[in-house]
Amino acid sequence: MKYSPLLDELISKLQYLPGVGRKTAQRMAFALLGQDRSRGLDLACAITAAMSGIRRCSRCRNYSDEEICPICASVKRQEEHVLCVVESPSDVAIIEQTGQFKGTYFVLHGRISPLEGMGPEEIGMGQLEELLRIGSFKEVIVALNSSVEGNMTSFMIARLAQRLGVTATTPSRGIPVGSELDSMDEGTLTYSFSNRKNL
Amino acid sequence: MKYSPLLDELISKLQYLPGVGRKTAQRMAFALLGQDRSRGLDLACAITAAMSGIRRCSRCRNYSDEEICPICASVKRQEEHVLCVVESPSDVAIIEQTGQFKGTYFVLHGRISPLEGMGPEEIGMGQLEELLRIGSFKEVIVALNSSVEGNMTSFMIARLAQRLGVTATTPSRGIPVGSELDSMDEGTLTYSFSNRKNL
Repeated sequence: MKYSPLLDELISKLQYLPGVGRKTAQRMAFALLGQDRSRGLDLACAITAAMSGIRRCSRCRNYSDEEICPICASVKRQEEHVLCVVESPSDVAIIEQTGQFKGTYFVLHGRISPLEGMGPEEIGMGQLEELLRIGSFKEVIVALNSSVEGNMTSFMIARLAQRLGVTATTPSRGIPVGSELDSMDEGTLTYSFSNRKNL
Repeated sequence: MKYSPLLDELISKLQYLPGVGRKTAQRMAFALLGQDRSRGLDLACAITAAMSGIRRCSRCRNYSDEEICPICASVKRQEEHVLCVVESPSDVAIIEQTGQFKGTYFVLHGRISPLEGMGPEEIGMGQLEELLRIGSFKEVIVALNSSVEGNMTSFMIARLAQRLGVTATTPSRGIPVGSELDSMDEGTLTYSFSNRKNL
């Protein structure tokens, strides 16, 4: 079907959204056109404002509307002297949802991956070193995903922390709380058995 | 998690899209921010242009960038003297994909439904009557969905066509081509058996 140029453009650009193929984009386009048009215009405004206005916090590299994000700006959180290093801003979001972590963050926006052109500079290793050097941190929690690249990056950060006299830790891995044993994959089970704890 | 105001606004407005809840909206927002920002801006432009520029064709009420849509503007399609009445623009899209129908369309943008405030005027019955009166149509194909409201609307259009001396037809219903008998619902099977055709 040949759509009108405007509709065709809308359907094609909606596919920039993750998980949205042609069929879903068509459904979204018709929904936007069928409902109150001001909602579509509001959506466009929100996207434009976010694309232009959201930058990286100059301290932790997390997304922020300001030069320094609210978490970094909080004296209370600075005074915890604990830094949590994560791969992406969505990791910060999910950790903040638990409400348990009171320290501050550092966002790598990726992991060391020569194939993807991600080196120490791209993930801000220099900035992290600077932060650890001047930040009087007692502990750095390295909370990266356990891929090959993630593990390599964790190792590099641990070595850096060691060199600067900061304790490096990582969240425990094993069977998720509330999960059934028989629904676990082999890798997790093997790991959690060889890393068992005293009751 | 309290996001920054701009990010919060983006996540909330992305939920205007059909089938997008908070979780998906978060994922979309982070993806838009993480990729080349010009793509997000392109998407916003496409939405704005579509919201402001796409209107209803003044003849068939389908979405169109122009006063008269390309299908209605085609003399060749007019000369088929067949009108297909559908509930929504997405129905036109799906029928056009088959490439089999050569006539023109009329889009109701809904069906008669007093509960939803949809009366004859909202679905353009007056405009349809006018079109059938002046259009020298031989046939009107009433291709609505078979809900209670859809059937009621089909009946009204059939009566209107009869009054104006135009043959009203409807696409056949039954077991979809390529479907297995044992995967069919009772309603479809009952219908297709009582409407069996000679081999």
